[in-house]
Amino acid sequence: LLATPFITSANSGVEKLTSNPANWATWGGNYAGTRYSELDQINANNVKNLQPAWSFSTGVLRGHEGGPLVIDDVIYIHTPFPNTVYAIDQATQAVIWEYTPTMDADVTIPVMCCDTVNRGLAYGDGKIFLQQSDTVLTALDAKSGKRIWSVQNGDPKLGMTNTQAPLVVKDKVITGISGGEFGVRGFLAAYDIKSGQLVWKGYSMGPDGDTIMDPKKSTTWKDGKVTPVGKNSGTNTWEGDQWKIGGGTTWGWFSYDPELNLVYYGSGNPSTWNPVQRPGDNKWSMSLWARDADTGEVKWVYQMTPHDEWDYDGINETVLVDQKVKGAMRKTIVHFDRNGFGYTLDRVTGELLVAEKFDKSVNWATHIDMKSGRPVLDLKYSTEANGEDVNTVGTCPAALGAKNQQPVSFSPKTGLFYISGNHLCMEYEPFEVSYTAGQPYVGATLSMMPAGADVLTGKPDGTTNLGQFTAFDATTGKIAWSNKETFSVWSGSLATAGDVVFYGTLEGYLKAVDAKTGKELYKFKTPSGIIGNVNTWSYKGKQYVGVLSGIGGWAGIGIAAGLDSGESDSNSEGLGAVGAYRSLSSFTKLGGVFTVFALPN
Amino acid sequence: LLATPFITSANSGVEKLTSNPANWATWGGNYAGTRYSELDQINANNVKNLQPAWSFSTGVLRGHEGGPLVIDDVIYIHTPFPNTVYAIDQATQAVIWEYTPTMDADVTIPVMCCDTVNRGLAYGDGKIFLQQSDTVLTALDAKSGKRIWSVQNGDPKLGMTNTQAPLVVKDKVITGISGGEFGVRGFLAAYDIKSGQLVWKGYSMGPDGDTIMDPKKSTTWKDGKVTPVGKNSGTNTWEGDQWKIGGGTTWGWFSYDPELNLVYYGSGNPSTWNPVQRPGDNKWSMSLWARDADTGEVKWVYQMTPHDEWDYDGINETVLVDQKVKGAMRKTIVHFDRNGFGYTLDRVTGELLVAEKFDKSVNWATHIDMKSGRPVLDLKYSTEANGEDVNTVGTCPAALGAKNQQPVSFSPKTGLFYISGNHLCMEYEPFEVSYTAGQPYVGATLSMMPAGADVLTGKPDGTTNLGQFTAFDATTGKIAWSNKETFSVWSGSLATAGDVVFYGTLEGYLKAVDAKTGKELYKFKTPSGIIGNVNTWSYKGKQYVGVLSGIGGWAGIGIAAGLDSGESDSNSEGLGAVGAYRSLSSFTKLGGVFTVFALPN
Ligand SMILES: O=C(O)c1cc(C(=O)O)c2c(n1)C(=O)C(=O)c1cc(C(=O)O)[nH]c1-2
Ligand SMILES: O=C(O)c1cc(C(=O)O)c2c(n1)C(=O)C(=O)c1cc(C(=O)O)[nH]c1-2
Repeated sequence: LLATPFITSANSGVEKLTSNPANWATWGGNYAGTRYSELDQINANNVKNLQPAWSFSTGVLRGHEGGPLVIDDVIYIHTPFPNTVYAIDQATQAVIWEYTPTMDADVTIPVMCCDTVNRGLAYGDGKIFLQQSDTVLTALDAKSGKRIWSVQNGDPKLGMTNTQAPLVVKDKVITGISGGEFGVRGFLAAYDIKSGQLVWKGYSMGPDGDTIMDPKKSTTWKDGKVTPVGKNSGTNTWEGDQWKIGGGTTWGWFSYDPELNLVYYGSGNPSTWNPVQRPGDNKWSMSLWARDADTGEVKWVYQMTPHDEWDYDGINETVLVDQKVKGAMRKTIVHFDRNGFGYTLDRVTGELLVAEKFDKSVNWATHIDMKSGRPVLDLKYSTEANGEDVNTVGTCPAALGAKNQQPVSFSPKTGLFYISGNHLCMEYEPFEVSYTAGQPYVGATLSMMPAGADVLTGKPDGTTNLGQFTAFDATTGKIAWSNKETFSVWSGSLATAGDVVFYGTLEGYLKAVDAKTGKELYKFKTPSGIIGNVNTWSYKGKQYVGVLSGIGGWAGIGIAAGLDSGESDSNSEGLGAVGAYRSLSSFTKLGGVFTVFALPN
Repeated sequence: LLATPFITSANSGVEKLTSNPANWATWGGNYAGTRYSELDQINANNVKNLQPAWSFSTGVLRGHEGGPLVIDDVIYIHTPFPNTVYAIDQATQAVIWEYTPTMDADVTIPVMCCDTVNRGLAYGDGKIFLQQSDTVLTALDAKSGKRIWSVQNGDPKLGMTNTQAPLVVKDKVITGISGGEFGVRGFLAAYDIKSGQLVWKGYSMGPDGDTIMDPKKSTTWKDGKVTPVGKNSGTNTWEGDQWKIGGGTTWGWFSYDPELNLVYYGSGNPSTWNPVQRPGDNKWSMSLWARDADTGEVKWVYQMTPHDEWDYDGINETVLVDQKVKGAMRKTIVHFDRNGFGYTLDRVTGELLVAEKFDKSVNWATHIDMKSGRPVLDLKYSTEANGEDVNTVGTCPAALGAKNQQPVSFSPKTGLFYISGNHLCMEYEPFEVSYTAGQPYVGATLSMMPAGADVLTGKPDGTTNLGQFTAFDATTGKIAWSNKETFSVWSGSLATAGDVVFYGTLEGYLKAVDAKTGKELYKFKTPSGIIGNVNTWSYKGKQYVGVLSGIGGWAGIGIAAGLDSGESDSNSEGLGAVGAYRSLSSFTKLGGVFTVFALPN
């Protein structure tokens, strides 16, 4: 049981920084994305004494996703649109510098599907990288906040935006694109950290040149073995030119294995949400990817949800840990998908090792066929089988997934993954839609409701909780424990060597639970609902925990965008989220605040 | 040495509520406006252990003035424009109800001189009274938040707005009006708490019928004695009809003596800021008032700054305490004026007892002549004497006063008043301006700078602090101690039986100091700059302290309204405040958050 802490000659300095737990230098704390810290000053015994140490309002309302970076004692935080970046001095809690890009709100905000969120910054080579909402990628001098370069990564007029955090890998900064609800064709792009020049760009679908696949060398899991993808696998499961507006956007988290030199990530839903309109597997939407960091060439790819009928974007984070699976140590990649299955693969080869439900209320598929790697559907919940203009009811999970973007954490001490989960089902009615560039290309009406079933057994139990916080063993596919939460847990968790796991709730609580048992050890109500990730670092020898609050994101879109009329006529607003989360507005209001916690002196 | 805790038959129930320190039922904690609490669980010994208990984002940016009301365990908070009211359940920290009035932002916000602030709610007769920015006064059912009545108190199209907290007195709710920078003629108005009908309205200037003065019975301090004001004292110190646009608005705090049945308050600056244009004393701008609560008739009035030349609005709070002055117990009224003098009067008669500088850097007047009650000017700093289009430099205090609206507290245990103070001087250049209804009627260009002089001696000392927190003995007119603050203290203080005094700073710190010595005992950085008042209450036997943060107000207008270009060309923006407070933006950003503090369990 091992995380992967080794140093290579990456010249951006990131790996060295992440090896010192005083820093929190990438979204995941390290390239593996474990969100685990070796710090143990705050532990299961004393965390009950935790208290806010200081706080900082960002001056921006709406959803605050992502978390702080802490590098050499300086804290870097970011906001949703307008994407202000603050460098904060911990000694004085004062702003060292701030940077707000110039963006056109009227062009950008209307094409952001799920609130004006931004999932955070990347650091490398003395620079802070800001992936702006309007797709411009900007490099700032980390010391002064001065802009060094900017590059246009997409075009908001065509429905392209950005929300995800970039990742610095060696001499490149890796970024993705959002817009699956606008027919945007997803890609991963690598820009030179010094110049901002595009180095490579690999699409989620299209001819092999576009996807950067070698028909013979790029592989996938098929027929029980690692198999070359073959020619034009990115076009031949699409009808005609549909791949050109095929979605598969890349708005999640990226991880990196320095030894293998591979970048890992997932791709999102195929466009449109109406499956009847796009026959075929729609490869490589809804897939896990391993690309060579230098060239972008695909090493392997694995599609979790062929021909999506439920909007189960495959973008959730990919965590790289070495684990013993069925008796043998494996370099694994672990991914908890929106579709409700936790996947463990060999990250060298893409071999499928484990695929089990991490919430047993999930019913769209009975299981994953391990040989083909494909889900075995329950046709009752197939919106394709039921057809256009038919309301398919009772499908679990809801479109926002058994888990959405909020990243898991992994403790090498317990061997468990800590999953911030949703616990909802949905109604889904596809309808025909035509594509217009820059216009919504959704084609389905949704509403969501509590799963009302036990997370461990799937048995109906009349519960109304919308969230679960679950500990999961990815080597066996078994749930270790799971806590109910009133609302979806939309905050990325943190595991520490103190045997504590932290996460935030939509009502605004920062919670600490026992890593072994899930027992709640501490909670504090921060100013607004938490959809940010909890990070930790140390300063002058003292451990701190910090999190952004600021309600929003897809779950909080009713509050963030003011879509809730308060009546059931607005239930299906916000792509179906408004009705389910209506009561959230009794618990929390908008407002971005960064709160830092510590033990008393 | 006594505060005034006695119960009369006031039918609104307010007095009874304020007699229980578990509540905080008026802006001042009681009718006397002492902002003193008998609670002593949090005391000078243990306050170092204080910590945030929970927090609540209001969802509104810009300046959050005023403080929470706590009545029968329910917390009521309010926001700046759009004036949302939240009733909060302390057990769950959830919103019981919320109410947001419908207002026209485009008409109202442009005529609010000094940010979109609101200084809080009033409670009485089972109702919450909200004085909206657009001048509408609204009564809400305290249990349900349902609107019971609304009444139009003024007309924003004529430059009238409201920012102050109303006060419920017996069967009436008392309110004022803002707009001194728009030529609005100030008044105090009383509305029936059941119906919202206007009962009386007393103007600050105008014929005796308008001011509700009896020329023989209404008195003022003159020639060393209490003297009838005489006929039409509200017009005969004005040229022609100028009193009709004479200012003297009433945007501060009101207090009430149930035994005397008198309401006390102050009136603001005469309009325009150019003194050359309005010869005469401009009565009764810049005055302290005692009015009969039932009829509005003036008992006595005292003008602090006749013929204002510096914008020293006389609206600061009036604190009603019984104190021994020169050997005799007196029912006093104590008032720390913007002009830098602390005034102690007999509140029964209006007799002037003490008038001394509470910041010795004050130089516009050498002293107050106790016989005439008039300031003795230093003509070097007279913008009238220097004339139109001449820049008068070095006048202290600056226009925002040695103290602005932030109310003081008084501890009957120490006998001291705790003053949140400014420590600035100014340049002031009057120019001719003509009146147009609803348009700014200012007529002066200002900039402000640190006083750079010792608060105790007035000697230049090269300091750059913009704030002082000062303890003052109002029976002798002596400063007991004074702490420097980097920025003006724009937060109302709180004194408690625990011998602790609390206040907030513009950087965002809640501070607790020793009531006797001023020694700092605790500080915590709340999310944004504090311009709210610190209040205290108890819930289930435990003492809590709560404060709104949210930078803004006049001192924070550069940040709140985005007026600061970052360069000196914007120094005189925001009526002269932008330059002086420029560096504040390194310390804090916008955002309204209510933070509640308690000792650990
Ligand atoms: O297909 C896309 O391009 C796309 C983009 C985003 C985004 O960029 O935030 C979301 C989604 N899809 C999505 O399906 C989804 O559930 C979602 C949730 C959130 C969020 O931040 O709460 N964003 C997004
Ligand atoms: O003359 C007026 O009517 C008027 C109104 C207000 C207000 O309503 O806020 C202020 C002032 N004047 C004023 O002179 C002043 O210094 C001031 C400060 C503030 C504040 O809230 O920070 N308001 C006001």
